[in-house]
Amino acid sequence: MQNLTRRLVAEALGTCLLVTAVVGSGIMAATLTSDIALALLCNTVATAAALIVLISVFGPISGAHFNPAVSLVMVVLREMSLVSFVGYCLAQIAGGLAGTWLAHAMFDLPLLQISTHVRTGPSQWLAEFVAAFGLLVTILSIRKSNPSAVPQSVGLYIAAAYWFTSSTSFANPAVTIARAFTDTFSGIRPIDAPAFIVVQVAGALAAMVFAGYLFKNDSGH
Amino acid sequence: MQNLTRRLVAEALGTCLLVTAVVGSGIMAATLTSDIALALLCNTVATAAALIVLISVFGPISGAHFNPAVSLVMVVLREMSLVSFVGYCLAQIAGGLAGTWLAHAMFDLPLLQISTHVRTGPSQWLAEFVAAFGLLVTILSIRKSNPSAVPQSVGLYIAAAYWFTSSTSFANPAVTIARAFTDTFSGIRPIDAPAFIVVQVAGALAAMVFAGYLFKNDSGH
Amino acid sequence: MQNLTRRLVAEALGTCLLVTAVVGSGIMAATLTSDIALALLCNTVATAAALIVLISVFGPISGAHFNPAVSLVMVVLREMSLVSFVGYCLAQIAGGLAGTWLAHAMFDLPLLQISTHVRTGPSQWLAEFVAAFGLLVTILSIRKSNPSAVPQSVGLYIAAAYWFTSSTSFANPAVTIARAFTDTFSGIRPIDAPAFIVVQVAGALAAMVFAGYLFKNDSGH
Amino acid sequence: MQNLTRRLVAEALGTCLLVTAVVGSGIMAATLTSDIALALLCNTVATAAALIVLISVFGPISGAHFNPAVSLVMVVLREMSLVSFVGYCLAQIAGGLAGTWLAHAMFDLPLLQISTHVRTGPSQWLAEFVAAFGLLVTILSIRKSNPSAVPQSVGLYIAAAYWFTSSTSFANPAVTIARAFTDTFSGIRPIDAPAFIVVQVAGALAAMVFAGYLFKNDSGH
Repeated sequence: MQNLTRRLVAEALGTCLLVTAVVGSGIMAATLTSDIALALLCNTVATAAALIVLISVFGPISGAHFNPAVSLVMVVLREMSLVSFVGYCLAQIAGGLAGTWLAHAMFDLPLLQISTHVRTGPSQWLAEFVAAFGLLVTILSIRKSNPSAVPQSVGLYIAAAYWFTSSTSFANPAVTIARAFTDTFSGIRPIDAPAFIVVQVAGALAAMVFAGYLFKNDSGH
Repeated sequence: MQNLTRRLVAEALGTCLLVTAVVGSGIMAATLTSDIALALLCNTVATAAALIVLISVFGPISGAHFNPAVSLVMVVLREMSLVSFVGYCLAQIAGGLAGTWLAHAMFDLPLLQISTHVRTGPSQWLAEFVAAFGLLVTILSIRKSNPSAVPQSVGLYIAAAYWFTSSTSFANPAVTIARAFTDTFSGIRPIDAPAFIVVQVAGALAAMVFAGYLFKNDSGH
Repeated sequence: MQNLTRRLVAEALGTCLLVTAVVGSGIMAATLTSDIALALLCNTVATAAALIVLISVFGPISGAHFNPAVSLVMVVLREMSLVSFVGYCLAQIAGGLAGTWLAHAMFDLPLLQISTHVRTGPSQWLAEFVAAFGLLVTILSIRKSNPSAVPQSVGLYIAAAYWFTSSTSFANPAVTIARAFTDTFSGIRPIDAPAFIVVQVAGALAAMVFAGYLFKNDSGH
Repeated sequence: MQNLTRRLVAEALGTCLLVTAVVGSGIMAATLTSDIALALLCNTVATAAALIVLISVFGPISGAHFNPAVSLVMVVLREMSLVSFVGYCLAQIAGGLAGTWLAHAMFDLPLLQISTHVRTGPSQWLAEFVAAFGLLVTILSIRKSNPSAVPQSVGLYIAAAYWFTSSTSFANPAVTIARAFTDTFSGIRPIDAPAFIVVQVAGALAAMVFAGYLFKNDSGH
């Protein structure tokens, strides 16, 4: 039980710092430039670098999911109990919200905000499906073929996906919820969040099925 | 046969996602800024990051060629059968086209487009020869001296070649075909594609000969 | 004694070159562009790259602290003697100052300057607490789970923290002192330095306590 | 003898492609943007990525010096014969010149050019001394402590040094000569080259002496 507590602390703090990195670097970048591509590039560098470090730091403790869609796949693959799953999700969501508020506090902004950033429509839903599909294919492949490369692979994947998806690749229900509570560069209107979360989960489960086919053990290596 | 099917799926999906990364990040970047160097830098970061991840993910299944010029060299080196080669090329071309359409769908653009981006002339043909030559020298060297470094080496090579060649380094016939079907940042006029492909193949074969000399086994290490 | 001398030389030169990288790249970037986000991005790339190299180079000699807050944690953890600690701090501060002056000399600026860059207030103090907390959590975790990844992890952490903290993440008392003596991009008013240093030390010690809980050895791995 | 021939081919082609990357990416970047910091950032990314790949590719054949200052240090350390040294220098200079011309050819510019870019004065000479000193300290340290990390360390070092030195860190006599023959972004007036080369050699030799002290084998590790 102590062990689960520690894992939950790792998931909460890791998700908190991940969201702080995403939201905080978005605030910093959008404050310093009016070129949106440049702001997104700075946001990309900070997010990818933070992801690589955070997965390296907390991976040995909790697996460093920081993402309910990842945890769900682990439950379906029977690598995680339902009790742990519920705990992980709560820790990730609570940590994510704390991460938004920490970013606001560091940048001297009102803590409580609601995003007005519209992110909706079939194209963006497709983008979130693709983003989550790619993320889970990456994780499920690399953890088998080269486990020590998971942090770097996830960081680089998200760096690319920030640019090749029209949604800038949220790919994470807990982070989506957290980003609904900031009316800054990286926000998303609360009303737009549920659809994002649905397609993220669908993309993750589709990746699980696909990876089960492509990376099954009888395949040569 | 099942095994070949799985390899072809890996080549098709890998090339699809590679083209999605190239085309999609080009659309995103060109939409967000009017500075073309900045757009190309964002395109570079996304392409290199995607390449590193995709080669890591699909390498253990299919070798992660994603490129008919690479597959051709493997045939000539007798590391691949003609049947596999034909399958790989078809999978790469089909995957590449799907990648363009996936990018268009995610960015809510017309799926079917024909590029009007002029890319022709002896200087650009020389550039594509150099780009493909360097790519194959990199692959043929690193897979012998440090196989686990191939994904990173290819990603970094393409990142550099985006900038040091006047053509921005297509270096890949399947990707060239796929990029003929997008009238966005990364496109190439269909009429300009055949010459690019010819010099890409020539550069790859020249690299094969050169690497056969420089990296042959009796050389000290 | 000779051994301590060599370690102090490593700390002094390493901190010198780190500050030269921070201050020098700030001067270069701010001279070449009027876009502050772009200047900070260039500053980020140079700082992170320099950190990775310098920790790799000097780590085997002195541990490559370059940071009194890191050395203090090592003393409290009884991994370092008080005598070494005093020597390290003096070497780091002297090296840092020399680094500022070396940057000024290379860019043909007056050697002696006092910063007028205001960096103060509770938000920035919180930011420095978070920056130092994250830095020490990173170091204390990675040196146990994957020691050879410490240089890269610290470099990437600082790259992210430049953007997600409102203070651009000094996170280092010796570097803070050194940056008080440059009236360029990366400077900090001398009057603002003591508060930064206090919260940096507090953040580092809090991280030590937290890491003692989260990464203690009976935890599964 | 065949063996030396192959090493010289590796040095010539490696230096050629390195200079092509430096000069070519400078041309591309300066053509696409008017923001000089952005141009230098693109130049930095391309140069560092190319360096990492080229050292990985040619290191197993020739050691991948690409730099007479590095080769000179190897002679003084008695790790290289005088005959090899003369051959290496000629190969590096010839390869570097070919690299400039290859870049010009790919960008459809006159092959033969003389730079008019003024780079002179004590500050820039100090910068080149520091740049070469740091480069050799990096190489001499990392090749002992972690040989497989040399390519990445050199690439990251140069990425940082492009920004923290006022000269943008040539740090290489063969590359300096080659860059005197391009009147583009990365050029240097021929009349300014000799002083750069003198201080580069001085910085390299100073690093050799310093590294002999700091990294000598009786030092703990």
